[in-house]
Amino acid sequence: MREIVAEDLEALAIGAGILGTGGGGNPYIGKLRCLEELKKGRRIPLLALDALDDEAFVVSVGGIGAPIVGIEKFEEGEECLRALRAVEEFFGRKADALIAAEIGGGNSMEPLLTAAQAGVAVVDGDGMGRAFPEMQMVTFSIYGRPSTPAALADEKGNVVFYRSTASEQDFERLARSTAVAMGGTAGSATAPMSGQFVKTAAVPGTVTQAINLGYAVLDAARQRKDPVDLICEREGGVRLMDAKIIDLKRHLKGGFAVGEIRFEGMGTFSGQTASVIFQNEFLSFEQDGAVRVCVPDLVIILELDTGRPITTEVLRFGQRVAVIALPCHPLLRTPEALAVVGPKAFGLGSVEFQPLPRPTWL
Amino acid sequence: MREIVAEDLEALAIGAGILGTGGGGNPYIGKLRCLEELKKGRRIPLLALDALDDEAFVVSVGGIGAPIVGIEKFEEGEECLRALRAVEEFFGRKADALIAAEIGGGNSMEPLLTAAQAGVAVVDGDGMGRAFPEMQMVTFSIYGRPSTPAALADEKGNVVFYRSTASEQDFERLARSTAVAMGGTAGSATAPMSGQFVKTAAVPGTVTQAINLGYAVLDAARQRKDPVDLICEREGGVRLMDAKIIDLKRHLKGGFAVGEIRFEGMGTFSGQTASVIFQNEFLSFEQDGAVRVCVPDLVIILELDTGRPITTEVLRFGQRVAVIALPCHPLLRTPEALAVVGPKAFGLGSVEFQPLPRPTWL
Repeated sequence: MREIVAEDLEALAIGAGILGTGGGGNPYIGKLRCLEELKKGRRIPLLALDALDDEAFVVSVGGIGAPIVGIEKFEEGEECLRALRAVEEFFGRKADALIAAEIGGGNSMEPLLTAAQAGVAVVDGDGMGRAFPEMQMVTFSIYGRPSTPAALADEKGNVVFYRSTASEQDFERLARSTAVAMGGTAGSATAPMSGQFVKTAAVPGTVTQAINLGYAVLDAARQRKDPVDLICEREGGVRLMDAKIIDLKRHLKGGFAVGEIRFEGMGTFSGQTASVIFQNEFLSFEQDGAVRVCVPDLVIILELDTGRPITTEVLRFGQRVAVIALPCHPLLRTPEALAVVGPKAFGLGSVEFQPLPRPTWL
Repeated sequence: MREIVAEDLEALAIGAGILGTGGGGNPYIGKLRCLEELKKGRRIPLLALDALDDEAFVVSVGGIGAPIVGIEKFEEGEECLRALRAVEEFFGRKADALIAAEIGGGNSMEPLLTAAQAGVAVVDGDGMGRAFPEMQMVTFSIYGRPSTPAALADEKGNVVFYRSTASEQDFERLARSTAVAMGGTAGSATAPMSGQFVKTAAVPGTVTQAINLGYAVLDAARQRKDPVDLICEREGGVRLMDAKIIDLKRHLKGGFAVGEIRFEGMGTFSGQTASVIFQNEFLSFEQDGAVRVCVPDLVIILELDTGRPITTEVLRFGQRVAVIALPCHPLLRTPEALAVVGPKAFGLGSVEFQPLPRPTWL
């Protein structure tokens, strides 16, 4: 079985940032925590989806809350572990493996950290294949496994347990308010499920994909290649525009960072203009009055020179960027999925989802 | 064993309002629900504290949230029962009896309603002997039994469970935020405890006291006696002032109704002035620059003519009222209790608690 090593963590932090599509929080502190665990001799086995036992008991772990809070309010480090223990106690059974609800951003690291602490494997997959702003926007829920029984834990030892909720939206609202009362962030353990279900509902291979994206950035720097081209080449991406940010509207609304970015093309894209709107994550890329790419496909903004991801909170006027798109997994393109994570779910009522072509080798 | 009958419920609704000291919410809707249960043939046995078995499993139930919300958002009716079931399930044991956390106001009715539904008895006592604004201001907690394991439930079937929290203040904050996310009110089951502990920590006889207060009001009307005198005579109260409200400041602060009322004496109190400040409940009665009565003793405002209680939300300029005081139970006067429910706990830093005399027969 593959094990995540220190170098993989460096790559994963970059790649998870790319799959974060502007949101999802920064994986940096989670990476440091995981490195500490490896130094202590703990291990992080990575289990391919099809190697998962049908009878395995799998739990999804991750942080909930405003990423911006996590910058000043550090995790104590075992929040997700305590949440996991509460769910395990309810079932009277230890988890066999953990899985990320969200590979994009900081939540890529939580399952690895908790797996190292608990001595179990991490599944190579997740529930989004990217980042999304709300907890119910996850394939586990979309394909029939509710988030509950679930638990939230804070840094002080408080653990709140949700046995069941009337709806996934109710769970999102209740958990969100608890996370706020816990100081803005909390660790969560959600969606306990069987290996059999995970194999059908998880977006496969996304831990590896994130690591590969990170290695593309690192390789490009070492080999003096263009990082944006290397990313697009390896992961089937489309280079939408090299551009300068010429306008930026950003405000907080209902706890979300929402706004719009306007671009002016550079290099081979000179003379073009475009815009991206976001709600924590980048939602759509519009050019010449038409939406060219939108959720659930991934709209990503990279530093033009380095290929490293730019999150919404560090966007600024005048920045030189590359806007790229990656095709999302087919699991996010079904009618059930589009109802939850498609353009209409984000208030883009007039936009029809036009899927990006997916290379056959993906 | 005494059973609560329909006429008792009418009296209890009045008496619980009196013990609510201006807060605690209105028992009216709870009374109607209890009457319905009695009509269905269900029963509400009332168990004296000393009749409680040491080994009995007792759970405290009540509503949490802003009383004002309860006026428009009716309870579905089994919120507390569902919260109770979650606590019972955790312990693998059914409750033998229920107890009110708070006899003052609407929470007087919740244990009766839930007891009728669950087919168990209600303990004649509670955790406050009156109303207080926060969940940790309860003798169970003051004398060593934390509120958790506890559960909150809403009208839609959502149940949130708190196995343990780092502190009672953490529980209050987490539960409060969940109640807000549940729409402003929720049913709760808290402080599971043994009969032995309840006998030492509960304020004894308060269901009966509330019923007696209510009968004093009803008897006075029937017998054309002065209701205020009858209340004071039967329950060891002090008639502080008959007065007209000449000034009223009231605003919402941190979810609480806070303010100040100024009075001008009438009748034998002509020429006197006084004031009462409140935070949901009336906190202190001040006259001639000195605080004569303050928390945890009960400052109560009654309609002068009827003796019925006036809550802070229906106070108005020009109202003719009687301000009376009732002595609180000795369990609320220990140093441990005063640290949690004494004047300093309510920000009245300069006030020393001067206990009202308690008649020996109380």
